[in-house]
Amino acid sequence: MPASGFSLDSRLAADCHKLWSSPESDILLMDKRMFRPWFILVPHSHVHELIDLEPEQLKTIMRQIAGITRFLRTEYQPDKINTATIGNMVSQLHVHIVARYHEDPCWPGTVWGWTSNEQSQCKQQYTAAEVETIRQKLLDAPGLLS
Amino acid sequence: MPASGFSLDSRLAADCHKLWSSPESDILLMDKRMFRPWFILVPHSHVHELIDLEPEQLKTIMRQIAGITRFLRTEYQPDKINTATIGNMVSQLHVHIVARYHEDPCWPGTVWGWTSNEQSQCKQQYTAAEVETIRQKLLDAPGLLS
Repeated sequence: MPASGFSLDSRLAADCHKLWSSPESDILLMDKRMFRPWFILVPHSHVHELIDLEPEQLKTIMRQIAGITRFLRTEYQPDKINTATIGNMVSQLHVHIVARYHEDPCWPGTVWGWTSNEQSQCKQQYTAAEVETIRQKLLDAPGLLS
Repeated sequence: MPASGFSLDSRLAADCHKLWSSPESDILLMDKRMFRPWFILVPHSHVHELIDLEPEQLKTIMRQIAGITRFLRTEYQPDKINTATIGNMVSQLHVHIVARYHEDPCWPGTVWGWTSNEQSQCKQQYTAAEVETIRQKLLDAPGLLS
């Protein structure tokens, strides 16, 4: 069962656009348009590690991670997909799923080690129309959100 | 089925101690003793993303990730566990499972964004006896490697 009283962490809410919500999770788009794109899946839960989710919710979340990974690959053809649960700064459980390219601003480093100083050199934010386009692609992806 | 002709990537082999090997995977210990400890699980496969593993091998690997995570928590009581598949530098599929502490050298950053310059300031390598102790704890962990 998804957690009662769940609310999205305020930092995730500030840094991301919410693309989609189900009883089990939210799918967020990190508002850094130089990564094409950087998704964050947030299970509706109060636990801090994936292994602590209830078995049924874990199954759903693993299916959603696989679905987002396939969607990224099909739609954006990245050179690599980086997937991680970190949670050192935001303790609410969340899964990063990031399309990476050889020419993106911090290749071959990780997006998490990238300093805010480096980030400030790039135009970062999506336009509303760009967010809507990504949301629509996600909603249209066969089998991903069903 | 595990891949035929699999051999461990030379950079992983150089940077890590092999603790354990099964038909499906290797468990490595990153030779950076300031992280207590940093495991790497390497499926015996030629694919580059977890979702591309054969269903049976994926099931085994997910069970091993969960087992290593529980082992880290029980044995080392970290403040957080960081889990990731990155593969930007070493394309061979491998899963990082890292015990993190508020007082470790790069908290709250990630171990992957940590520069070699910063790393060189710390004594890094395990002694053979320390590796053996960790291997023995791993081998003794109930249900992990069975």
